[in-house]
Amino acid sequence: MKPDPAELSRLIAQGHKRAIARAISIIENGHTQARSILEALHPRIGRAHRIGITGPPGVGKSTLTNQIIKYYRKKEISVGVIAVDPSSPFTGGAILGDRVRMQDLFTDPGVFIRSMATRGSLGGLARQASEAADVLDAAGKDVIIMETVGVGQVELDIMNAADTILVVNVPDTGDVIQGMKAGLMEIGDVFIVNKADLEGAERMKTDIQFVLELKGETSGWQQQVFLVDSRKGTGLDDMLTEIDRHKNYLNDAGEFELKRLRRKREQVKSMIMERLGDVFWNKERSELLEKLLEKKSPVEIVDRMLS
Amino acid sequence: MKPDPAELSRLIAQGHKRAIARAISIIENGHTQARSILEALHPRIGRAHRIGITGPPGVGKSTLTNQIIKYYRKKEISVGVIAVDPSSPFTGGAILGDRVRMQDLFTDPGVFIRSMATRGSLGGLARQASEAADVLDAAGKDVIIMETVGVGQVELDIMNAADTILVVNVPDTGDVIQGMKAGLMEIGDVFIVNKADLEGAERMKTDIQFVLELKGETSGWQQQVFLVDSRKGTGLDDMLTEIDRHKNYLNDAGEFELKRLRRKREQVKSMIMERLGDVFWNKERSELLEKLLEKKSPVEIVDRMLS
Repeated sequence: MKPDPAELSRLIAQGHKRAIARAISIIENGHTQARSILEALHPRIGRAHRIGITGPPGVGKSTLTNQIIKYYRKKEISVGVIAVDPSSPFTGGAILGDRVRMQDLFTDPGVFIRSMATRGSLGGLARQASEAADVLDAAGKDVIIMETVGVGQVELDIMNAADTILVVNVPDTGDVIQGMKAGLMEIGDVFIVNKADLEGAERMKTDIQFVLELKGETSGWQQQVFLVDSRKGTGLDDMLTEIDRHKNYLNDAGEFELKRLRRKREQVKSMIMERLGDVFWNKERSELLEKLLEKKSPVEIVDRMLS
Repeated sequence: MKPDPAELSRLIAQGHKRAIARAISIIENGHTQARSILEALHPRIGRAHRIGITGPPGVGKSTLTNQIIKYYRKKEISVGVIAVDPSSPFTGGAILGDRVRMQDLFTDPGVFIRSMATRGSLGGLARQASEAADVLDAAGKDVIIMETVGVGQVELDIMNAADTILVVNVPDTGDVIQGMKAGLMEIGDVFIVNKADLEGAERMKTDIQFVLELKGETSGWQQQVFLVDSRKGTGLDDMLTEIDRHKNYLNDAGEFELKRLRRKREQVKSMIMERLGDVFWNKERSELLEKLLEKKSPVEIVDRMLS
């Protein structure tokens, strides 16, 4: 059965869980239909607060996500979660495993949780995750959490789709300051040291705070570090207040709108490149490429084909 | 100091280690010079046997790589290694750490080892790794080993650049058959169960072999599974004979040449898309995009800009 994009969009707008799940599957499978669905949903996209959660594996990101969901649900704020594992098709089930423990959240109509993994497909996971967030946004979720398993390339790409980025660490991650130079210091809006009762937690907080202050404000926002224990629930209030404070800052500074436009710009650019490619690679050019491939160097071929 | 591409290429062709390292750094840093260097090296690219090694983290891929290097060095075959860690900027040093233990290999002029990590850069790691292999190929390395840390998206992309792909597992990786369905069964040419003395090793070999035989030959090559212990060195002879047998198969079937052309085709296509993008995004179009961005939907903008 082929769902009608208009009908599916109508159901998604009503927050229909199965329609949302269906649309995300269509996006995951790379169906051309995805385009029509997202286009139909477009007027409804751009209202949700998108929170990205990243950090090395094993620092308690899932537990933290669950705490954040509970916090928002108490305030009757609806939540969508996209949990992405680009690191391995093997661990695709691991994230979902964490979720299954939270059965109560699964039956809450105000919560929608979805795992996405590589599943052997090459490329496009970050874009698919961003489009899945668009679907949840159009479905009326107030907050969308995008959680990743590690801190690699694809994870950083996925964080590009978030408004507020939480970077999570634990005291035993080793030389964090050194590691964070690799990119997380740049992208984080709120820094979290989880498992605050472990030795070295306070020291780690001070170290991160020191580097953040050295670096200075990023367009008007000075990042802070929070000690939490996501299992026991300690320190969460301050962190959650900070997330809300960052949301307000984004609104006041016009950054929220800028981020929305940046995502849309990237989407348009990638659609245009796709279409340019489709137009360029017609039968004649494909045949010409094959003819030149063995005899000429790459630059010679490119020059010839673009002349 | 800006190296002259022609001079650098000449030194690389002579196998000059510092020139090779220099060229790979230029590729890593995304300098436009990389293009000229690869173009100058082009006539010398395409002779090496490229071996990819992939599998979940912790299965002993580095130790296996070191054993393979020793095997080839005994036969006076020169070896280049590109060890790529796309999973995290944090573990960038880990691969290199393994190497440092192999001091004897570092001083062997017939061996060149290089680690590449994400280092916070977004995208392009697979392409950079492939181009680094091109440099080693042009430098006259007979065998080039491309080793990755995990089995994620970027790792699979990197394996695309290899002629012979080794998939490594250990008995305690859990339900491998299930996991392997995610992509590794499709790409592997030689399957390895490492730490053969662990319980379940024989069973795992049988399981993988069963699935491979169900799947049948892939274009004339029936994959086999090998029990090895890369630390103790047991079972390596059979595995290494199989790698050589796969190389001969590739040569005889014309697949070696086909793979070389496929890599070149991808390279040309990506260069062409880059150039099409550069030409398309002139000042007028960039301004038009900004004007339309707030008011129109993505599809409306794309249609308008391509009309």
